[in-house]
Amino acid sequence: MKNRIYIVGMGPGKEEMMTGEALTVLAQSDVIIGYTVYLNLLGERFQGKELLSTPMRQETERCILCFEKAEEGKQVALICSGDAGVYGMASLMYELGKNHPETELVVIPGITAANSGAAVLGAPLNHDFCVISLSDLLTPWNKIEKRLIAAAEGDFAIAIYNPSSHKRKDYLMRACDILLRYLEEDRACGYVENIGREGTKAVTCTLKELREAQVNMFTTVFIGNSGSEIVNGKLITKRGYQIEKNTDLCRDNRR
Amino acid sequence: MKNRIYIVGMGPGKEEMMTGEALTVLAQSDVIIGYTVYLNLLGERFQGKELLSTPMRQETERCILCFEKAEEGKQVALICSGDAGVYGMASLMYELGKNHPETELVVIPGITAANSGAAVLGAPLNHDFCVISLSDLLTPWNKIEKRLIAAAEGDFAIAIYNPSSHKRKDYLMRACDILLRYLEEDRACGYVENIGREGTKAVTCTLKELREAQVNMFTTVFIGNSGSEIVNGKLITKRGYQIEKNTDLCRDNRR
Repeated sequence: MKNRIYIVGMGPGKEEMMTGEALTVLAQSDVIIGYTVYLNLLGERFQGKELLSTPMRQETERCILCFEKAEEGKQVALICSGDAGVYGMASLMYELGKNHPETELVVIPGITAANSGAAVLGAPLNHDFCVISLSDLLTPWNKIEKRLIAAAEGDFAIAIYNPSSHKRKDYLMRACDILLRYLEEDRACGYVENIGREGTKAVTCTLKELREAQVNMFTTVFIGNSGSEIVNGKLITKRGYQIEKNTDLCRDNRR
Repeated sequence: MKNRIYIVGMGPGKEEMMTGEALTVLAQSDVIIGYTVYLNLLGERFQGKELLSTPMRQETERCILCFEKAEEGKQVALICSGDAGVYGMASLMYELGKNHPETELVVIPGITAANSGAAVLGAPLNHDFCVISLSDLLTPWNKIEKRLIAAAEGDFAIAIYNPSSHKRKDYLMRACDILLRYLEEDRACGYVENIGREGTKAVTCTLKELREAQVNMFTTVFIGNSGSEIVNGKLITKRGYQIEKNTDLCRDNRR
């Protein structure tokens, strides 16, 4: 019988924003592994488990620890914030898993910041959208620039992750400068801080104002498409010609 | 005191893939409104509620019904599959809500097919990605084409919704033909049918093979970026130079 490791998305952090299956998997685990901040977000009921963390820069070590514990015969869950398959640990686990063919990996989806943030802000991603990270730790800036340009030229709504950090305070400004070459200054935008935590804050603004916005590592930024608008403080992206046309064959089925 | 309508994402349909807050909101509702198929997915415990549906083509009527019931003083929840803010009803509700300023709208996020399907398929969206719908009911095909081209030129991983329906059987083929002008034939791809339901099926393939794939309205399609690969039947997109470099400053915090 194969070892199995669950890779679990916690969503923004609040237990009520986790899925039943995520909570069940964690309850059934012997060992829960993750970055310390997220282990601390787990409720009381998980405190009796073996909880293991590695410092934030040591993700490869954290993944290797998962395989080691699984090979000891323990039921292992690796936790990630948001969704484990969105800038998360899932792909790294699969990469390392090439060396551990006897171990099965199961990804348990969670709500990623693009969607939890969008829910607070209105409906900014209600049509085709892109998700782009401004972190250039593993991705060269010229690649990020190429993606921002493509997103603008494709008239996508955009969700931006990692807009800022201690060492990258001007990256959102740089991203807005790139977008302003293609999009109008008054493009409808917004951002959400501390999604699902104390002090959630949602702000709508223009692209020009976004350029000057003070954001941090806990902020998710949204840029509307050409049809987006701000309605009563909410950023709304239309699905299409939605008021004029009333026919919508099989739309719900096709989601 | 304002009326309030909750717009709730159900995820793929199984109760265990819904969040605690979604279930709590539904439990506290007097009226649950939605397309019949999704009302039927709700468990036994909601059957005592006033459950109202409209035919699949009548989404505006369904939204108007929500405001009517809220104005009767009832606690109303509108359910959508997946996430209500991804090709969902959230933006239509906000649009119609302009006529109902006394009613507050609250979106409760759910897991959208891009993420629930990705979890089954491996980790296809683990770096910057686009979500594109092939439904041209509300969006002209030339706009869809422009988005596919931008996604390819930006080297995004791609999740495709609504790849097929009764009247649009060749749309995936048409989309692949557009992508094949920009991407190599052996680009790593895959698709998932019946996410979270009976008979979930995940297939990995090349872009050339995807062109011929038989998909339906319950399928979510994934196209990898230039760094994606198929590993043991799973479609994996790397986050970046993830094995060579081990430093990852604040990555978890910034998700």
